Amino acid sequence: MIKEKINSKNETVLIPADEAFEMTVKEMEEAIAKAPRVVRQYTTHLLSSRGKNIRAGALITCSQNEEGFVHPNTVKIAAAIEVLHLATLVHDDVIDDADLRRGEMTLQKKYGKKTAVICGDYLLCTALVLAASISEKEKYLNLTLPDYAGKICMGELEQHINNFNLNLTIYQYLKIISGKTAALFEASFYAGAVLAGYDKKECNRYKQLGFYVGMIFQLTDDLMDFESTKEISLKPVQSDYEQGVITLPLIHTLKSAVDFKQKAEKKDITRQEINTAVKHSGGLFFTKQIVDKYYKKAVKTMDELSLDSVKKAKLTEVLNKASRLN
Amino acid sequence: MIKEKINSKNETVLIPADEAFEMTVKEMEEAIAKAPRVVRQYTTHLLSSRGKNIRAGALITCSQNEEGFVHPNTVKIAAAIEVLHLATLVHDDVIDDADLRRGEMTLQKKYGKKTAVICGDYLLCTALVLAASISEKEKYLNLTLPDYAGKICMGELEQHINNFNLNLTIYQYLKIISGKTAALFEASFYAGAVLAGYDKKECNRYKQLGFYVGMIFQLTDDLMDFESTKEISLKPVQSDYEQGVITLPLIHTLKSAVDFKQKAEKKDITRQEINTAVKHSGGLFFTKQIVDKYYKKAVKTMDELSLDSVKKAKLTEVLNKASRLN
Repeated sequence: MIKEKINSKNETVLIPADEAFEMTVKEMEEAIAKAPRVVRQYTTHLLSSRGKNIRAGALITCSQNEEGFVHPNTVKIAAAIEVLHLATLVHDDVIDDADLRRGEMTLQKKYGKKTAVICGDYLLCTALVLAASISEKEKYLNLTLPDYAGKICMGELEQHINNFNLNLTIYQYLKIISGKTAALFEASFYAGAVLAGYDKKECNRYKQLGFYVGMIFQLTDDLMDFESTKEISLKPVQSDYEQGVITLPLIHTLKSAVDFKQKAEKKDITRQEINTAVKHSGGLFFTKQIVDKYYKKAVKTMDELSLDSVKKAKLTEVLNKASRLN
Repeated sequence: MIKEKINSKNETVLIPADEAFEMTVKEMEEAIAKAPRVVRQYTTHLLSSRGKNIRAGALITCSQNEEGFVHPNTVKIAAAIEVLHLATLVHDDVIDDADLRRGEMTLQKKYGKKTAVICGDYLLCTALVLAASISEKEKYLNLTLPDYAGKICMGELEQHINNFNLNLTIYQYLKIISGKTAALFEASFYAGAVLAGYDKKECNRYKQLGFYVGMIFQLTDDLMDFESTKEISLKPVQSDYEQGVITLPLIHTLKSAVDFKQKAEKKDITRQEINTAVKHSGGLFFTKQIVDKYYKKAVKTMDELSLDSVKKAKLTEVLNKASRLN
């Protein structure tokens, strides 16, 4: 586990942001690999595929000072966020009966749902233990990871009970993904700002930016389910509907194409018909417009932050990654 | 949610222990009932049956001062422990395919495994949010609930992978239940002592006592599976083996009765035969001896604590409740 270094002036030695990212990945892998044998045999499977750690990257970027350095605590919280994310994926895959994740077989497919439930629980606890391992805790009492984890659960639950609900509204859907996906981005941006020592107002702006980035990330994911191939996205595409997950492009289509909806209600519909309908009814175009709206809001929020040019460029990169623009 | 009252001397107004117990039950019910609608519709089902809140009771008892009063924070942590316990039960029932709990249908049976997974996650988060809501947090930085939650997961996982393992050793089994059950008792006793403001050595003694009480609680539960009736224990009895859970009475029997083990390995065995074998091979007697050993250790540890007579009587009551002696 990362140890803080103290210099001769008795100050904590800060870490260059790039190095902090590498350290976070290591910290995360260590936390998973050093789990007790009984859990490790399952959780190490998760290390065979690498995520992009976009949340950790965002957190570290938000936390960097004008010289591009971050506090060592940043590494711990960034690792905690990624482990928490991993925990939610493991349980998600249980809920969605998913077979493939990041190009690898899911834990629930490989070892069964029961094992996956407990491993997810264990990872959730590991994340919170990691978060609790920061130094000078009394400074960061408003970093409430469980609150965000709770929001994620609610988003998941709301999605689950709306499985195959062809009457799901746009508003309801945006609310679901604001929990399911955007909450953890919010937490990452917010934590980065708190760790950087910004004032409350500035921290809340970062949080807001995180929310927009999260919404963009999820909606782009939804688009990719219609547009991408399995090879590019490293997970099954054209699978949301098959799992009963009704996403924004389809919601728009169901609303505007009455015949299509009637057919869908009778479950008398092929994937090919869905794709055609979503494309022709403008479901993809509509979703892209919403993404664009969030993108503009994100840019506006970034303009309100006090950012040096390097940090601004890096945050723009995070935003573009979420939009899969780079 | 409970609010601290401050007296004219600017001190926190303490609460009588009995009142604190009632407040804890209320706090817990509130936390569950005020969950967002989407979770509430499921979690309120859990309120239709009442547990005995033995862990909360123990925590409050450990925390009471010589006048029998506790700090308001005690109510929050006790409620957090019970909600955490509830979360583990919900996931346990998923793992064990259990239909009945506390005389009511389980969440997984009533609403399905997927809903139960997410509700368990939500309750786990609620527990940690409750724990994080205490005042003067900087005083209680060593109250690390996630550590204990992690231990519980590992016990569960270890139990799950040892399903139908007829070669499980006594040592392995005691290790499993030290996580699965004793860890939360340990946490309760320890938290009570920390909240009371005792020194480290005294807090660790309380923790040790909690461990013994937890072991007694689980082993007595194991005995009840063989000896009790469904009506008395409000959950299915004679069900551990059917779910592949090999408990201490059976482990002893498998070790001492070779013919029986061979029959069991061929899965050629009725519940009646198990009961007879466990009784005749002395499996129940052996387990009772182990319980007795822990009981004596608990009494010895209690003697080492600085206890007034009222508190000693109350702690003895907790110990006897765990042993189902009252």
